Amino acid sequence: MSLNHTPNAERVHIGIFGKRNAGKSSLINAITGQDLAVVSEVSGTTTDPVYKAMEILPLGPVLLIDTPGLDDTGKLGELRVHKSWQILNKTDIALLVIDERQGISPEDEAILNRIAKKQIPCIIVMNKHDLMPENQKVSLPENIGFPAIEVSASTGYHIPELRELLTSVYHVPEEKFRIVGDLLSPSDFAVLVVPIDKAAPKGRLILPQQQTIRDILEADATAIVCKEYELRETLENLGKKPKIVITDSQVFAKVSADTPKDILLTSFSILMARYKGNLETLVKGVSILDQLKDGDRVLISEGCTHHRQCDDIGSVKIPRWVRNYTGVEPEFSYSSGTEFPEDLSSYRMIIHCGGCTLNEREMKYRIACSEDAGVPITNYGIAIACMQGILRRSLEPFPSISAYLENHKDL
Amino acid sequence: MSLNHTPNAERVHIGIFGKRNAGKSSLINAITGQDLAVVSEVSGTTTDPVYKAMEILPLGPVLLIDTPGLDDTGKLGELRVHKSWQILNKTDIALLVIDERQGISPEDEAILNRIAKKQIPCIIVMNKHDLMPENQKVSLPENIGFPAIEVSASTGYHIPELRELLTSVYHVPEEKFRIVGDLLSPSDFAVLVVPIDKAAPKGRLILPQQQTIRDILEADATAIVCKEYELRETLENLGKKPKIVITDSQVFAKVSADTPKDILLTSFSILMARYKGNLETLVKGVSILDQLKDGDRVLISEGCTHHRQCDDIGSVKIPRWVRNYTGVEPEFSYSSGTEFPEDLSSYRMIIHCGGCTLNEREMKYRIACSEDAGVPITNYGIAIACMQGILRRSLEPFPSISAYLENHKDL
Repeated sequence: MSLNHTPNAERVHIGIFGKRNAGKSSLINAITGQDLAVVSEVSGTTTDPVYKAMEILPLGPVLLIDTPGLDDTGKLGELRVHKSWQILNKTDIALLVIDERQGISPEDEAILNRIAKKQIPCIIVMNKHDLMPENQKVSLPENIGFPAIEVSASTGYHIPELRELLTSVYHVPEEKFRIVGDLLSPSDFAVLVVPIDKAAPKGRLILPQQQTIRDILEADATAIVCKEYELRETLENLGKKPKIVITDSQVFAKVSADTPKDILLTSFSILMARYKGNLETLVKGVSILDQLKDGDRVLISEGCTHHRQCDDIGSVKIPRWVRNYTGVEPEFSYSSGTEFPEDLSSYRMIIHCGGCTLNEREMKYRIACSEDAGVPITNYGIAIACMQGILRRSLEPFPSISAYLENHKDL
Repeated sequence: MSLNHTPNAERVHIGIFGKRNAGKSSLINAITGQDLAVVSEVSGTTTDPVYKAMEILPLGPVLLIDTPGLDDTGKLGELRVHKSWQILNKTDIALLVIDERQGISPEDEAILNRIAKKQIPCIIVMNKHDLMPENQKVSLPENIGFPAIEVSASTGYHIPELRELLTSVYHVPEEKFRIVGDLLSPSDFAVLVVPIDKAAPKGRLILPQQQTIRDILEADATAIVCKEYELRETLENLGKKPKIVITDSQVFAKVSADTPKDILLTSFSILMARYKGNLETLVKGVSILDQLKDGDRVLISEGCTHHRQCDDIGSVKIPRWVRNYTGVEPEFSYSSGTEFPEDLSSYRMIIHCGGCTLNEREMKYRIACSEDAGVPITNYGIAIACMQGILRRSLEPFPSISAYLENHKDL
């Protein structure tokens, strides 16, 4: 059975939300206790959500997330509720579990509003139907906009129907974005500038470089790869003008100087942010650099722990560039690997690495949590382009983003 | 401690050889039982060698291989002895353990000759020195050419000295070969032809393609990557003639037709074989195709089990091409993954995949075992080039191999 081999990040994430007494855990047991196998279970502390990997056919591999009660109280309870709300940022389908006898509470309504705002498919699960007095009828708010189903976790009533409903509300996300292929016509030349320094992995290309080459080939175009020192001569020796030059952010300044103004120029970092649907958010995030003040807290966050690929970019270069560019002295904090602060509210801005070692879901989760907390977030490549004064040029290939820049002439 | 994380293939392989009574296992226990930690132990059946991963400073991470006795008898015993000899093909340092009181036996001499022929560093370990009568002296054959040391596994006598000796006889292998950089001058263009078919991994480049691009960049040259259908137009649009075209073997015929005769042409497969030091052996191996007869056994061996990357090349295309090219009907056998036949003697020839999923040590081991068994071995890319009549052209960049071809005009 290959069930165990599906990485959790690739499973459909089903978040189970509700008040403490709604029967969330019983509902999960009812679903998993049937003909479905629980293949892993990570029990956390009481503040942590519980994850259960399983298979729901025909939906496929899923990850059920049991979250803390929405009505928890006290200082610790508040933290738990906050965590439940954050879980929404990694939820593909939300189940809001209520005790049918009690109907929908203000806490339920609050999270339903958030779910609607985030456009997450949702099912209202009216649990404990077996305890419902015959003459009582639940009243749902009008225009609630989500399907509702009466179930009983303890008797199994309507549990198979709930599984079918899960399958029908979920829509496989379409791949909306290309890396660069949509900017190219067949037989176009695209030049890639790949520095070979001690941070480059021995004998290999990093994934964004591979993905970009691959996408160029799929557009029936030709990828031309050189180091920054060979760019000028390479451009001279091409028999026709390339459509675009794509560079590693670290050598942006030199590449910008060596690339004639009538050739599009951007970076792997910007292309990957666009591919993952985050470009607009990250460009808006960088604009806060101009408003930084002494003592503002800036979080620098890196996906890898080894600092092998990223060298000292995050810990040394970025802080120095930020000080030089802004002329102020912010207070820098650092996080790396899977660690990412629970509470982001004290930060003025977040500068994150490209996230090549994080899965896409984790990166999206971090960006969504930053947005929830109202903290602007940007990434290394976009921050570097901004501080080197070439952000505008490197966003020219993308008209919708350029329009945003028109209103921020300072960038 | 990172000790556990060194892949076994990257450890210095120390093969412990000797007769059944020589004290091989005791010697390993003496070495590992000191201040050195055994971090893993794989016990096999009695016919299988036993591997122990450990650290010997300053030599670093090693893999000790305890082999069956060289003087084993009976049908099963013979198989065990054969296995011990095969282990030489993955041995970086050989320890020949003898009972000092008995001196060197004919079995010991036989394996010493093989060790010398294979140019493996070796130490003769004269064990059981504590049992040696005071007035007896061991007599080693003259000019034996390897250092010898008296030890006692049971008392620990000279065990630290043996470890020092291990470190001093071992020489870190130099990287002798480049992939393609040695054929290029700075600012040269090298064109890479990369087909995108269902066998190509989604959104990535396979390792040989990455390695080749990387090596081109390290030579201060420029890599130009396109699919086979865009090659002709790409060549027309370059402002200067590329030095070399490197193609996936599967589209060799089309690429050869589209590449002007004054441009060097070769394949990733040939470059990787040269890089790993196997090109000459594999080219010699392919020459046997012309001598194949009906019913000759041909082993087709693949490193991956999924057949995902290699598609049906091994199981369908190669057999068909061999039949077409030779006009005879051989008997094809197949092996895949880590399985590789112990006894190769019944095969007329072996056609192996490029081995991109096998580590280099395993690939070298298989080639050496084939050579020991006197069975010619070649790889997919070289076989395809030969059968498509373009082997000669694709080896032109390598004069030493071309010289061999001069004596085999038929290839």
